[in-house]
Amino acid sequence: MAEIIDGKATSLAIKDEIAEKVKQIVNDGGKVPHLAAVLVGDDGASQTYVNGKVKACEYVGFKSSLLKFDSDIPEEDLLEVVDKLNNEDDIDGYIVQLPLPKHISPQKVIERIKPEKDVDGFHPVNVGRMVLGLPAYISATPFGILKLLERYKIDTEGKECVIIGRSDIVGTPMSNLLSRKTYPGNCTVTLCHSRTKDIKSLSRNADIVIAALGMPEFLTGDMVKDGAVVIDVGVTRVPDATKKRGYALKGDVKFDEVAEKASYITPVPGGVGPMTIASLLYNTLMASQKAIYS
Amino acid sequence: MAEIIDGKATSLAIKDEIAEKVKQIVNDGGKVPHLAAVLVGDDGASQTYVNGKVKACEYVGFKSSLLKFDSDIPEEDLLEVVDKLNNEDDIDGYIVQLPLPKHISPQKVIERIKPEKDVDGFHPVNVGRMVLGLPAYISATPFGILKLLERYKIDTEGKECVIIGRSDIVGTPMSNLLSRKTYPGNCTVTLCHSRTKDIKSLSRNADIVIAALGMPEFLTGDMVKDGAVVIDVGVTRVPDATKKRGYALKGDVKFDEVAEKASYITPVPGGVGPMTIASLLYNTLMASQKAIYS
Repeated sequence: MAEIIDGKATSLAIKDEIAEKVKQIVNDGGKVPHLAAVLVGDDGASQTYVNGKVKACEYVGFKSSLLKFDSDIPEEDLLEVVDKLNNEDDIDGYIVQLPLPKHISPQKVIERIKPEKDVDGFHPVNVGRMVLGLPAYISATPFGILKLLERYKIDTEGKECVIIGRSDIVGTPMSNLLSRKTYPGNCTVTLCHSRTKDIKSLSRNADIVIAALGMPEFLTGDMVKDGAVVIDVGVTRVPDATKKRGYALKGDVKFDEVAEKASYITPVPGGVGPMTIASLLYNTLMASQKAIYS
Repeated sequence: MAEIIDGKATSLAIKDEIAEKVKQIVNDGGKVPHLAAVLVGDDGASQTYVNGKVKACEYVGFKSSLLKFDSDIPEEDLLEVVDKLNNEDDIDGYIVQLPLPKHISPQKVIERIKPEKDVDGFHPVNVGRMVLGLPAYISATPFGILKLLERYKIDTEGKECVIIGRSDIVGTPMSNLLSRKTYPGNCTVTLCHSRTKDIKSLSRNADIVIAALGMPEFLTGDMVKDGAVVIDVGVTRVPDATKKRGYALKGDVKFDEVAEKASYITPVPGGVGPMTIASLLYNTLMASQKAIYS
């Protein structure tokens, strides 16, 4: 039976470390890290995420600013907001909550963010620097997975790692990160996706499997080998009449079956998910310390 | 017996197409593409490369400028040269020939180049955009390999591809490019390197093998399956008394053995090598057309 990788507890531990560091900075007369969040429109999920980020800032002692705009804000006006945040000295880092209304190009907005303040790590400069092994803001989910591997002291060197799903925000960056000559890294990574002919034959030989395709319970027990480390990135709402809210959250891993064979496994919820906020806080701390771009 | 992928002929064909396009542009009263090359010091190989690039510009009808500096040019002065080239409207793209003398940080120089003029594709913005599937200058060797696969109509969709070597300029970008949802691409890529435990067991199952580790004749016949497509990126000078110049050029593939089993194979020399200049010309043409950054 696998050991459960506890993302909630790990995230809390990281937040506590950040809070400790902030106290120190303040004691030394330094600048309080300041994160700003831009929220466009009134999508419920986005509001919940942004509120969570603001609350997390309070928890660790960061300053935070929330900038809300109506969903009909013209693209040009939002780009001006971005320019302003780029030039606002007190703001160390900021995020523009996605998705944006259809009339606004998220790519245009992302590329307008100053890379030095792009604590979401979505700007091409940060992606490129990450791939080149230069200091960079690593985006929330990949960063969270690296931290979980690290905190649970999971050996990655020379391990065969199968990643399922090639998204820009999880699968592709994870494949680059775990291929790098460092820890966690030095894995032999195989990146699988919708055109892969036989995922099972690959995943069954892998020491580490990262499921990030967004298909509930895709990875079944027969698809992993004994002792594998299994990271579940999926979170899909599946209708469930027995739940008050009418749905259950399902990962990409058939948990009961896979947990029986794996050595380590992340649950859903409570695995990778809670780590994303810790990542954002960590990146903001780095930004305020000018640790990535000097 | 494998079909030989002829890089020399393919490169020439691309150069002829570019020359044709330049004629058209000039006929239409458009701007002649202009490539500049910066050469620091008097390294013989670098001089040869740069001369080759200048000659290729002449061949296709580009304007070219060669800026030569002594090897003791201060870093700050070279950065000023870069700034000047960034602001010189007539210059569409330029390269700074590597390696640079030890007192100059190549990374600093590369990051100072305006991404719009970075026809070598080394700037983090171009690397990041490439990984994100956005329009970008793709660096010479990966671009050359893509073109060879394309021109020889090699089927890549759903194919298992093993890349040996994770360098920033070949292995890593190739793994990203061939994983993308496009053609050439949609491969299931496994990226191998010095920490990979058993390369042979992986390469032997691959439909496409790209050897880019810089170890002469590393890939032997028993490491590939029948019908595999084999791309050899290695070029190492191996002492050879029977040659006038005292060395022979060896690829990473044991050609005779592998050619017997492969369906397609690139020779060394005459395979991937000649493609790099065609890539540079193509990127410069794109720059002059503002096709990547509009």
